[in-house]
Amino acid sequence: MNLRIPGPTPVPAEVAQAGAAEMINHRGPEFAAMLRRITDRVQEVFQTKGDLLTLTTSGTGGMEAAVVNFISPGDKVLVVTIGEFGQRFLTIAKIYGADAQQLAFEAGTAADPARIDDALARDPEIKAVLITHNETSTGVTNVGLSEVGKVVRGRDRLLIVDAISSLSSIPVATDEWNLDVVISGSQKGWMVAPGLAFVSVNERAWAAAERCTTPRFYFDLGRAKKSMASGETPWTPAVSIFFQMDKALDLMYAEGIDNIYARHARHGRMVRDGARAIGLELFASEGVESNTVTAIRVPEGVKGGDWLRIAREEFGTVFAGGQGELSGKIVRFGHLGYCTDEHVQDGLKALEGSLARARGTHGS
Amino acid sequence: MNLRIPGPTPVPAEVAQAGAAEMINHRGPEFAAMLRRITDRVQEVFQTKGDLLTLTTSGTGGMEAAVVNFISPGDKVLVVTIGEFGQRFLTIAKIYGADAQQLAFEAGTAADPARIDDALARDPEIKAVLITHNETSTGVTNVGLSEVGKVVRGRDRLLIVDAISSLSSIPVATDEWNLDVVISGSQKGWMVAPGLAFVSVNERAWAAAERCTTPRFYFDLGRAKKSMASGETPWTPAVSIFFQMDKALDLMYAEGIDNIYARHARHGRMVRDGARAIGLELFASEGVESNTVTAIRVPEGVKGGDWLRIAREEFGTVFAGGQGELSGKIVRFGHLGYCTDEHVQDGLKALEGSLARARGTHGS
Repeated sequence: MNLRIPGPTPVPAEVAQAGAAEMINHRGPEFAAMLRRITDRVQEVFQTKGDLLTLTTSGTGGMEAAVVNFISPGDKVLVVTIGEFGQRFLTIAKIYGADAQQLAFEAGTAADPARIDDALARDPEIKAVLITHNETSTGVTNVGLSEVGKVVRGRDRLLIVDAISSLSSIPVATDEWNLDVVISGSQKGWMVAPGLAFVSVNERAWAAAERCTTPRFYFDLGRAKKSMASGETPWTPAVSIFFQMDKALDLMYAEGIDNIYARHARHGRMVRDGARAIGLELFASEGVESNTVTAIRVPEGVKGGDWLRIAREEFGTVFAGGQGELSGKIVRFGHLGYCTDEHVQDGLKALEGSLARARGTHGS
Repeated sequence: MNLRIPGPTPVPAEVAQAGAAEMINHRGPEFAAMLRRITDRVQEVFQTKGDLLTLTTSGTGGMEAAVVNFISPGDKVLVVTIGEFGQRFLTIAKIYGADAQQLAFEAGTAADPARIDDALARDPEIKAVLITHNETSTGVTNVGLSEVGKVVRGRDRLLIVDAISSLSSIPVATDEWNLDVVISGSQKGWMVAPGLAFVSVNERAWAAAERCTTPRFYFDLGRAKKSMASGETPWTPAVSIFFQMDKALDLMYAEGIDNIYARHARHGRMVRDGARAIGLELFASEGVESNTVTAIRVPEGVKGGDWLRIAREEFGTVFAGGQGELSGKIVRFGHLGYCTDEHVQDGLKALEGSLARARGTHGS
């Protein structure tokens, strides 16, 4: 199967195999050394000198950690949404009692930093801004993130970024861009099985955590930081996924992080050009298309569900459909993490072949 | 290395290897079929007709789920503690705002069901009882759990049980024993890498969940149940650990669940007899010793840390030390999950050999 969804991505054989290594004591010296090796390198990819904490949870758990550690009930926050994952951030913030104001941008477009600045200027009570860097549901990258960072820091608010599906595939300069809290997840650009979330926390964010009254235990980042000092995690970690992560970072560093960014940019272009060449329309506006996932409009007369099914059953390729309101309206082609030129070329062939068949199904 | 800690347990080679299978779409038909296969069998081992939900988290996350879904801020609950993991339950309940009353029993002993009944009789406001089935920190099993179940059901309160380190190794008859919520974790008797927690929920517990006002999102069991209906999990699951679990259940069913219980009982006896034969004293009182982990007192004149280090470095065997106040005072020998007669015999030899060396270090 050519797994072309926006995560989990395929896992290179060496990485998958590394996860099968002999189990170790999670409170012993081997784990401590591995945790440090992983942390140092993930921190470097995050481009941060802040703390980098690894949680045994999926990306959504990382998002929850980014809310419950820094936002107290009643805190006014601005949640910038450009799709489903922004909505998820909004839901989490509301559930935990934040006075969450939504600043929504149309699906397929990116956030406008100037409008964020306006919102902050109008309301000095807003304490934090939550934003998605790469919106998997629409195939859009918030390309103005560094500008958003400037704006939010300029107004002295906290900036919390879901970079789950971008970080390590698309450059994120955490410190330089003034991002106070950043989240990523193992099953995306890191080309590892799902189960680990990474959260970076800078000094400004720790100060907010100290003031934060939201109850937290499993996702308490303060506890994670404290345990990290002795090379441990507070709770039993997903050791086999740490093994995979350790190996995946070896491969990533061998390829070179900048080369990985270049590969993702090239594959993004290949998929967009390939899709257009088949006569398909992209969902994302020009200039904000993601280099990790491409959302393609389902053409008139084609049922999205049929297209996906035929791609899977007859072309051995798994694409993702649309979520929520976009269900049946788009097909999403993932090209992040472990993705070769062949994966992309085969994916494009499968896209074209299955589309023809899906049209046939409903044609004549 | 002979990993003889009370979890993570060694993972059989076939199970470890299963985790390296090709990554799949967590929203596709293969995952749905696997989730159902796993759920049906885990449910059977839990001996419940209630719902069985699998979360991507460690056991502690399962404990948190068992609190935030069923206990509201201000609810009076009784937390029965016989060691560190009971204390952890107490901490979680308090953090999430419960009016948590502790009923503590001395370390090394089990809980007395009659005293739980007394406590409930005296205070009709207590809504739920939280208890550890198998206390890993002291090597004690709450052997009266079925009696506790009778007592708590008799008083019409909710019973929430941490069976993380017992379930699948020591019989737990969830429905028959009137256990409303039960938690287990993949890295214990299931002989799988850490990263999955299992939580069973019966109708009485779902009714409590409906009334529960504690905010929850990642650990929201209602969302998990809803997703389960379509063979999914609400958030991206730890797919590689599900692969392992699927294979481990094959092995467990091939061995036979009753045979697994008998093996654990036999290994418990072997370790206790072996430790006594070396002249060591057990920490647990007679009759309540756990069949998954044995806590052994560090003899006078021996430093617990030295003993553990020598066992690891010179005898290739990893034991666990004591936690909290028992640090340096006990050594814990795990014999749960993937554990053969040889593992136990080699473990006993290492225990004896390292003790002699540790004595030598401080003798003469």
